[in-house]
Amino acid sequence: MGTKTVRVGIVGASGYTGGELLRLLATHPRAEVTVATSREYAGQPISNVHFNLKGFLGGLKFSQLSIDQLIGKCDVVFTSTPSGVSKDLAPKLVEHGLRVIDLSPDFRLKDPKLYEYWYDFTHGAPDLLSKAVYGLPELHRADLSNARLVACPGCNATAALLSLIPAVESKLIDLDHIVVDVKVGSSEAGMKPTLGTHHPERANVMRPYEASGHRHVAEVEQELSMLSGRSVRVALVPHAVGAVRGALATSHVWLADSSTDEMTVWKAYAKRYGQEPFVRIVRGGRHPDPKYVTGSNFADVGMAVEQRIGRAALLAAIDNLMKGAAGQAVQCMNLVCGFDEREGLYAPPLRPV
Amino acid sequence: MGTKTVRVGIVGASGYTGGELLRLLATHPRAEVTVATSREYAGQPISNVHFNLKGFLGGLKFSQLSIDQLIGKCDVVFTSTPSGVSKDLAPKLVEHGLRVIDLSPDFRLKDPKLYEYWYDFTHGAPDLLSKAVYGLPELHRADLSNARLVACPGCNATAALLSLIPAVESKLIDLDHIVVDVKVGSSEAGMKPTLGTHHPERANVMRPYEASGHRHVAEVEQELSMLSGRSVRVALVPHAVGAVRGALATSHVWLADSSTDEMTVWKAYAKRYGQEPFVRIVRGGRHPDPKYVTGSNFADVGMAVEQRIGRAALLAAIDNLMKGAAGQAVQCMNLVCGFDEREGLYAPPLRPV
Amino acid sequence: MGTKTVRVGIVGASGYTGGELLRLLATHPRAEVTVATSREYAGQPISNVHFNLKGFLGGLKFSQLSIDQLIGKCDVVFTSTPSGVSKDLAPKLVEHGLRVIDLSPDFRLKDPKLYEYWYDFTHGAPDLLSKAVYGLPELHRADLSNARLVACPGCNATAALLSLIPAVESKLIDLDHIVVDVKVGSSEAGMKPTLGTHHPERANVMRPYEASGHRHVAEVEQELSMLSGRSVRVALVPHAVGAVRGALATSHVWLADSSTDEMTVWKAYAKRYGQEPFVRIVRGGRHPDPKYVTGSNFADVGMAVEQRIGRAALLAAIDNLMKGAAGQAVQCMNLVCGFDEREGLYAPPLRPV
Amino acid sequence: MGTKTVRVGIVGASGYTGGELLRLLATHPRAEVTVATSREYAGQPISNVHFNLKGFLGGLKFSQLSIDQLIGKCDVVFTSTPSGVSKDLAPKLVEHGLRVIDLSPDFRLKDPKLYEYWYDFTHGAPDLLSKAVYGLPELHRADLSNARLVACPGCNATAALLSLIPAVESKLIDLDHIVVDVKVGSSEAGMKPTLGTHHPERANVMRPYEASGHRHVAEVEQELSMLSGRSVRVALVPHAVGAVRGALATSHVWLADSSTDEMTVWKAYAKRYGQEPFVRIVRGGRHPDPKYVTGSNFADVGMAVEQRIGRAALLAAIDNLMKGAAGQAVQCMNLVCGFDEREGLYAPPLRPV
Repeated sequence: MGTKTVRVGIVGASGYTGGELLRLLATHPRAEVTVATSREYAGQPISNVHFNLKGFLGGLKFSQLSIDQLIGKCDVVFTSTPSGVSKDLAPKLVEHGLRVIDLSPDFRLKDPKLYEYWYDFTHGAPDLLSKAVYGLPELHRADLSNARLVACPGCNATAALLSLIPAVESKLIDLDHIVVDVKVGSSEAGMKPTLGTHHPERANVMRPYEASGHRHVAEVEQELSMLSGRSVRVALVPHAVGAVRGALATSHVWLADSSTDEMTVWKAYAKRYGQEPFVRIVRGGRHPDPKYVTGSNFADVGMAVEQRIGRAALLAAIDNLMKGAAGQAVQCMNLVCGFDEREGLYAPPLRPV
Repeated sequence: MGTKTVRVGIVGASGYTGGELLRLLATHPRAEVTVATSREYAGQPISNVHFNLKGFLGGLKFSQLSIDQLIGKCDVVFTSTPSGVSKDLAPKLVEHGLRVIDLSPDFRLKDPKLYEYWYDFTHGAPDLLSKAVYGLPELHRADLSNARLVACPGCNATAALLSLIPAVESKLIDLDHIVVDVKVGSSEAGMKPTLGTHHPERANVMRPYEASGHRHVAEVEQELSMLSGRSVRVALVPHAVGAVRGALATSHVWLADSSTDEMTVWKAYAKRYGQEPFVRIVRGGRHPDPKYVTGSNFADVGMAVEQRIGRAALLAAIDNLMKGAAGQAVQCMNLVCGFDEREGLYAPPLRPV
Repeated sequence: MGTKTVRVGIVGASGYTGGELLRLLATHPRAEVTVATSREYAGQPISNVHFNLKGFLGGLKFSQLSIDQLIGKCDVVFTSTPSGVSKDLAPKLVEHGLRVIDLSPDFRLKDPKLYEYWYDFTHGAPDLLSKAVYGLPELHRADLSNARLVACPGCNATAALLSLIPAVESKLIDLDHIVVDVKVGSSEAGMKPTLGTHHPERANVMRPYEASGHRHVAEVEQELSMLSGRSVRVALVPHAVGAVRGALATSHVWLADSSTDEMTVWKAYAKRYGQEPFVRIVRGGRHPDPKYVTGSNFADVGMAVEQRIGRAALLAAIDNLMKGAAGQAVQCMNLVCGFDEREGLYAPPLRPV
Repeated sequence: MGTKTVRVGIVGASGYTGGELLRLLATHPRAEVTVATSREYAGQPISNVHFNLKGFLGGLKFSQLSIDQLIGKCDVVFTSTPSGVSKDLAPKLVEHGLRVIDLSPDFRLKDPKLYEYWYDFTHGAPDLLSKAVYGLPELHRADLSNARLVACPGCNATAALLSLIPAVESKLIDLDHIVVDVKVGSSEAGMKPTLGTHHPERANVMRPYEASGHRHVAEVEQELSMLSGRSVRVALVPHAVGAVRGALATSHVWLADSSTDEMTVWKAYAKRYGQEPFVRIVRGGRHPDPKYVTGSNFADVGMAVEQRIGRAALLAAIDNLMKGAAGQAVQCMNLVCGFDEREGLYAPPLRPV
């Protein structure tokens, strides 16, 4: 992209991910938010919903979704919509030359049939599925530079994949018995109040959900299968726990060679992630904890090996709204636009929080 | 026991488990606390430490540990001490005819060598190890009635075992790939302040600990091996999460027969636990959550089967200080003393909390 | 009442206060719940809503509100309804000889005009207002024994009054500048999810609400005016803070005689509350904190005097669902029915929690 | 200052305020941290203590405090030390031409005798007290530009003052009955674990502390007396509540003219703070809540008037580690160094968190 600054639209800007995109882009040196849509809040100032943004983003107000407006005022559009919406919207924007960074699941899976199984819809743009780039820079950086349509990973999938990629690539683990136990904060459920997210019910929980099969497992299996060259099945169970932000993937694996020690595993991770701007490897008596990446785009990754029984816990901690959603989407935007990948994103996490 | 009321001593009464024992026994209709020891607080009123107990337990004060005093004033003694203490203390009390209910790990493992591996000490009373009864009533109720020495399970072990017992007994699962991912509240770490339990550091965490091997796995493996008649190895990783009370075991298992459905698993649990006074089976779109057993001695147990890949999540939720410690110890005392097992314990959990 | 056991109905049993009444009455030795109404959940088992009560209360199910059924099956009825409901319902029940314990505001205020100012309705039973007894046993114990209609105080009012009663009675403070700053947990808002109670928005808050005048101030002013024999006006501001249960009233007062010391204040409180079964006076470097009364009917009361400027902080901490609602209502029931005031209620708080 | 970039030293860099200074300065475009002292952690990498800073600040390590080193390597020094330390240290640094930004209480009070009353020490540099500038830019911006020694306000004092300044300046309130009720998160207590900050004890609290007189009241009274031209006494009581970050001052005041309405008060605030870069006035059915300034240097200010009884609640919400400590200190540094006041600080708060 030749222009110094990109004009950005956000579809679905009143939710938490939309708010986080607005927060990041409000101070991004090379982006300007020109459109922020919201059905419910159209016409209202951004800060009526996102109290934290009072004083930022000029006089920007929410507007109704208008494809013409997006085409006329934006170079890049983030779609932060429920599943099933962007599959119809994105093709139109791409067709008009816009770059689309989709935060919904609609373009993550290459196999259209999986949308019927996991998302209960028939995909209307199966051709675009193959062109969409899965927006995990640690896996698809090169492709992202040329992407017209980016399918950003789910937050649980991001954590799961980052915990597992080096182990799978280095063939360190038994691919038939991978268990990913994920813990997440309440912001993952979005902004709509329900009894399950009502504070008296949600505080202090340790609550498994979708324990018989969580949708994000589909993209984890897809990417791990691509990495390993064989079909990989994963047991993935998320748990709501007592926090607002954060996602931790604890991948419980059995070692391919039961004599593998922790140093060997660490070396594989250190080598694989050594140049990654947003992955930090945690060692020294400490394990990754989302608490220490809050507000940032970092993924902290670590491992623990129990040689006694030839198993390991492979760990990845992210802020679900950042590296798990808006931060990673902006990282993708930077790549798509040819900016420095760290632009507008490279700041330390908050602590304590 | 012929007496209507037992005289109870608590060794290590100033910690959280000691406080919970005091709370329960303060209103237990058939017990009277006559001795409560504390090195640090000897001479002080109970409520100086346990603020909640102000107005209860008469004028009881903490005293220094004295074996003579225990022998003279108690029928039953609870030992709530760090590992390595009761292994020397309990034999003396048992020798004098007292019943000992040990909440430490010192008598949980039948194989004395395991104490060297997991607890860094050589056991001085290996003969008592075989006589001690592992204090999980759901496994050893009959033996508990005659026990002189009860070894109460660790809280993580209690949750892990209760989640797995029916599945193992019914041979429903692959015994070679059992993963138990445990989430616990901060009270599990006890009452001593450390940087890790400092509120700004402990709030909102999702923090794995002892991820290369947690001591409680030894008793879980012992009991599951006894149940299944073969050696069972378990991958168990606890995680500190944002709550004060509670422990949830999520046992991730692969089904022995991949076509097993959830109803089959449920039936095994319903049959096994149907008569248990403190086990409740949770179904109907909901999973066990320690939040809903807070303050009670109940274990809520549940399951989710993913037939797609032949796996299940087997779940048990407890209050770590109750069914995971003091509550279960009182349940054992009731059995040891020939009382109704529910005496002083059978009340609903608090909600919301 | 001659019968050993009272038959109890609960109108509005599916909310938090209803659930807490059910929890308490499930183990109350002299009460049996025969009716529990809920518009939304009629026909469903209690434990579908109150997960904690699984296994208790026999097969009791929620039913639709039926006055005939209440009259036929109950001796005492608790009404736990929104403001404006029991003002019409209670008279009918009282007329048929039932005792009514109203947890709504409908009978708290003696002056019917105050309902128009604070509650936006015209009271249809102004005669009953004068007969209703304000259900704070610490103020109206004698009247409660003969009450046919009890108007239980609001939770903020309970905490405010208990913090102030001895100081007002003993004429220790300037009645023209009383400020009551209240902090409350999220359960005070009830069970209906809203954006304000959505966990990501409600966690970690320090949020004033109804800061220009909270309804509970009306009953506080009424009772303090009665106590002092003059009109008293109070500045009362509640704040939502990060907890599920609890209410703390910090009453900031200026001393009538600026040389009054803390011992003098303490003596007034110790004398006034010395015989109260559910009031505990906290001293010794510690202040009342709702955390240490959780799950119990206790009010912890305390004080701090700053002689430098002649002021004091008078403190009362309660569990808002217990002494602030259901617990106090059961305490009133015990009095109304001639039971020991502590029946079914006298157990220590939970700690830590 | 002529140089483009200032070299910064931080004395006491291992605490929370030190960590927050490091976090802010790590990305500040015109500052470079050259020295970070810590007695306990000297020789260790910054990220051993401040996990969030892994990957930032180059290879900076903690060092022992050395005045020579500070003089040789720094232009500006932040002192984040316990009370009583910088009163001896700062004079030496100032003497050598360094600018000192003191985050301790040692130079906040103009009257040396107040140090004996409130801080139990005799001040050894009373002359410097008069030259030190109280670091609240909203009160002393002009003086800060030329300050050699800045005394940053306490966090409770910052919130209290920002809530009250316009009301006092505009003579809207009764100066004889000001009550400031403050709520704070756990990070205010610093990084040293104690029983009071132990998570099981600190979670969910509503706990008044130093209720007979909190030290910060001295600086509040000093500044309000200066503003009003008469002696002002304030009742200030802080309360620990369930959050990690945040401080809310609820200033309960009686209106000088009881007919004053909310619009009048709002106008005074809007006028006074209209040009302030880090003060935002909150209205529209919402009140200030520290939750919505987390991670930022903003103070959100608001008000509620109860005309019924001629009183108001004047509110200010800050992040105690930012506008209440490190953020405000950097704001002062920007002023002292002639930078744009917003440099390195002007970013939106995080939400939700």
